[in-house]
Amino acid sequence: MRLRVDLLPHGNYADVVVVIDTLRATTTAVTYLERGADALLLTRTPDVALGLRGEGFLLGGERGGLPIPGFDFGNSPVEASGQNFTGKTVVMNTTNGTGAAHIAAQTGKHIFLASLTNAHAAARRAKAQATEEVAIVCAGTDEHVGLEDVYTAGVLAEYLLSLGEFTIDDGARIALTIRRGSGNPLEALGSSVHGARLNNLGLGEDVRYASELSTSTVVPTLVEGEDVPEGTLKFIAG
Amino acid sequence: MRLRVDLLPHGNYADVVVVIDTLRATTTAVTYLERGADALLLTRTPDVALGLRGEGFLLGGERGGLPIPGFDFGNSPVEASGQNFTGKTVVMNTTNGTGAAHIAAQTGKHIFLASLTNAHAAARRAKAQATEEVAIVCAGTDEHVGLEDVYTAGVLAEYLLSLGEFTIDDGARIALTIRRGSGNPLEALGSSVHGARLNNLGLGEDVRYASELSTSTVVPTLVEGEDVPEGTLKFIAG
Repeated sequence: MRLRVDLLPHGNYADVVVVIDTLRATTTAVTYLERGADALLLTRTPDVALGLRGEGFLLGGERGGLPIPGFDFGNSPVEASGQNFTGKTVVMNTTNGTGAAHIAAQTGKHIFLASLTNAHAAARRAKAQATEEVAIVCAGTDEHVGLEDVYTAGVLAEYLLSLGEFTIDDGARIALTIRRGSGNPLEALGSSVHGARLNNLGLGEDVRYASELSTSTVVPTLVEGEDVPEGTLKFIAG
Repeated sequence: MRLRVDLLPHGNYADVVVVIDTLRATTTAVTYLERGADALLLTRTPDVALGLRGEGFLLGGERGGLPIPGFDFGNSPVEASGQNFTGKTVVMNTTNGTGAAHIAAQTGKHIFLASLTNAHAAARRAKAQATEEVAIVCAGTDEHVGLEDVYTAGVLAEYLLSLGEFTIDDGARIALTIRRGSGNPLEALGSSVHGARLNNLGLGEDVRYASELSTSTVVPTLVEGEDVPEGTLKFIAG
């Protein structure tokens, strides 16, 4: 079995793909499902999300860390954790994470979303589904590698290596070394450029929330179906 | 002053750019100049290199680690170290390194080539020339991040931080952690996917050569001029 870590989305995924956008899209996605949401629709663009407004969906997302005009929610896991989404479908569009999920879905067979908050559950699910490869894909920030995503990838990689035999690539080696050499999760996320920016925006509580390790066993899982609107990917709790 | 490390070539460089392709293009480039070459012409494509054949130039390069038909030399620093290139200009084309140099030259003001073998000299030169930013650019391998380049970037970053004050990005944080957590240079290069591939091709001596730290003070430096053939970048010893 191969373990591959892409420090930025690259494409050409053969089997299982685990998409990480620690600050904050995949952390928030886990939280929506934890708080009862039926499903998430990750859209290719903000316009696709706005086009779904008025169909009974809630809209969540951000640009530059701030809420998008016309959306119901920002991209804040803390905000999401205080709400009840039972029976709701949340439409999500964010700067990096939703795009990474769309790249993953182009060729991947099984697509999951992971954060630190569901890291061990996501690693177990990936291992259980994979027949040849687990690819962990870091969303990054505006096409630059994000320390917070590489750290999370290292947490998943470390746990996967404890679950079985893998041949690993350089991305996995780098992620494992970053995991071991960057302190605890809050130190790692807080020292990242993106973590510092969120702290400056007054969103430090989100950074703290996203730093909690394996507080959830919910793994957002891509499903197909005729009811999935064009330009969106549907994820349900797995 | 900003210190930025791109784990893959990204573009939009504002000031000083240091291009790294440790296995093996930039290591070999340093060696050609060490062994007396007047200049290096890094071409955009192999065809540009072949078009310069017969004009008194020597051609060096590789695809998939192997020499290119019609070229005089492979991309081997060990091979280069046994020759005398006094008075010669070497035309180079390689899978990753020469392309990264062309991306750097699109916007960068001062372009240097670095390897482990000239790491400290390259860092000093970069610091001396920079007015706002030093960008270290890892060439990678076929658009995947290469451990050997990130390690070398970490060596340069570590030395730069000892020379002055920098604000650093996540790429620099990652490179510094990889430098500190991946053993000595030969262990780091030998554990990389690219290093293992070269060992399997019988080119382990090149991996050992490329692992020697700061054995040279030659820094290949981009120069402009009317005599530079189209589609090439001219580097001289600096």
